[in-house]
Amino acid sequence: MLEAEGVDYVFLPAVEEMYAAGAETIVDVGPITERLEGAHRPGHFRGVATVVLKLFNILMPTRAYFGRKDAQQIVVIRRMVRDLDVDVEIVAVDTVREPDGLALSSRNAYLSPTERQAALCLSSALNLAREMWTRGTRDADYIRRRMLDIIAEEELAKPDYVSIAHPETLEEVERIQGPALVSMAVRIGRTRLIDNVTLGE
Amino acid sequence: MLEAEGVDYVFLPAVEEMYAAGAETIVDVGPITERLEGAHRPGHFRGVATVVLKLFNILMPTRAYFGRKDAQQIVVIRRMVRDLDVDVEIVAVDTVREPDGLALSSRNAYLSPTERQAALCLSSALNLAREMWTRGTRDADYIRRRMLDIIAEEELAKPDYVSIAHPETLEEVERIQGPALVSMAVRIGRTRLIDNVTLGE
Repeated sequence: MLEAEGVDYVFLPAVEEMYAAGAETIVDVGPITERLEGAHRPGHFRGVATVVLKLFNILMPTRAYFGRKDAQQIVVIRRMVRDLDVDVEIVAVDTVREPDGLALSSRNAYLSPTERQAALCLSSALNLAREMWTRGTRDADYIRRRMLDIIAEEELAKPDYVSIAHPETLEEVERIQGPALVSMAVRIGRTRLIDNVTLGE
Repeated sequence: MLEAEGVDYVFLPAVEEMYAAGAETIVDVGPITERLEGAHRPGHFRGVATVVLKLFNILMPTRAYFGRKDAQQIVVIRRMVRDLDVDVEIVAVDTVREPDGLALSSRNAYLSPTERQAALCLSSALNLAREMWTRGTRDADYIRRRMLDIIAEEELAKPDYVSIAHPETLEEVERIQGPALVSMAVRIGRTRLIDNVTLGE
C-alpha cells in the first residue's frame, strides 16, 4: 500500500525496540493534555508526547505529518516542539471524509449499518456549528447546545463532550472571537468516535 | 577566560530566550530524580532535564561535558538521553580538587577560614570510604557509619545525607558488589556542599 503511494522507507519498530528495559523518562506537555480527550484518557498524551519525541530523535525528520482528526494530538505535539525547541516542522493533514460526511477512521469498521447511519450526527453537528458561525453566531454555549440537540436526536449516540475551545490553549470559550476548535467525542453503541472542525482559520 | 582556553563560541541565552511565554512542557526522568539531591530539592532535576534537553535540541552537540561533582546530574542526563533516544555523547569530567582535597565549587567562596577547614571532612570521609573498600570492606552500612563519624568530629558540619548507591539506579546498596557511587551533602555553617567518588569503576 505504501509502495503504491511512493513511500521509500518505513520505520516500524517493535515495542521492545522503542522502550528499553527500565526506561522511566516521560514528557508532560502540561494542562492542555488534561482537557478534552485527556480528561477521558488520563496519561494518554504523556505517552503520545514521549513516543513522538523519541521518534523525532531517532528519525530527525524535516517535516512530520499528523491528521487533523486527532486535533488535540496536533496541538499537544506543536506545543511540545515549541517548548522543547525541537527542530521539526509539524504539518497538519486535512481529515478525509466519506461522501456523506463521516470522517474516515479505523474504528468505523466496528459500526453496524444502523450505527454507521447514527454516526452521521457527528459531522451534522459540526456542519451546524459552521453554519451558525458563518451566519454570525458567536455565543459558544448556544452553538454547543444546538450541537447536543442534534446528537440527542440519535438514540444510539451518547456524547462524551462537545467543545468549542481556543485552538492553542484548548480552554473553552464563551464567545467566539478568533479561531475556535469545535470538537467532540460521541459513543455510537460501543464505538467511541471523535471529530472536529476549526472555525475562523 | 574561555578565549584563553581556546573556546570559539559561547551560547549564553537570557531566561526569556530559553523559556517562551506559556511554556509548560516538562521532562521527568522518574524515580532516580527523587533520590539523594532530588529528595532535598523537589523538582530540581525536572528543571535540569527540561533545560538540558532544550539546549541539546538548540545546539545539537556531538558531545556534551558535565562535571562529576554533580554525580546525580550526570546519571539523570544519561538516563534521559538513553530513554528519549537523544543523539549526543555525554562525557563526564573529573572533579578538580584543591591540594588539600576540597572539591572546587563556586560555593567555597562563602566559607569562612574556619568553615573552609571544616569542609575538609567531605573529602576525608570519601577517602576513608575508598580506603576501606580497597582493603576489602563491602558492608555499605559500616562504611556509611564510619563516614558519618568523621563528619560528626567537625562541630560546624551537619550531614544532609551520606549515600552508597548503585551508580545508575541510585538505590542504596547493602553490600558493595559492583561499582558504587559514594556521595554526600553536608552543611558547613550556611553553605551546603556536595562531593562524591565512584568505587570499582
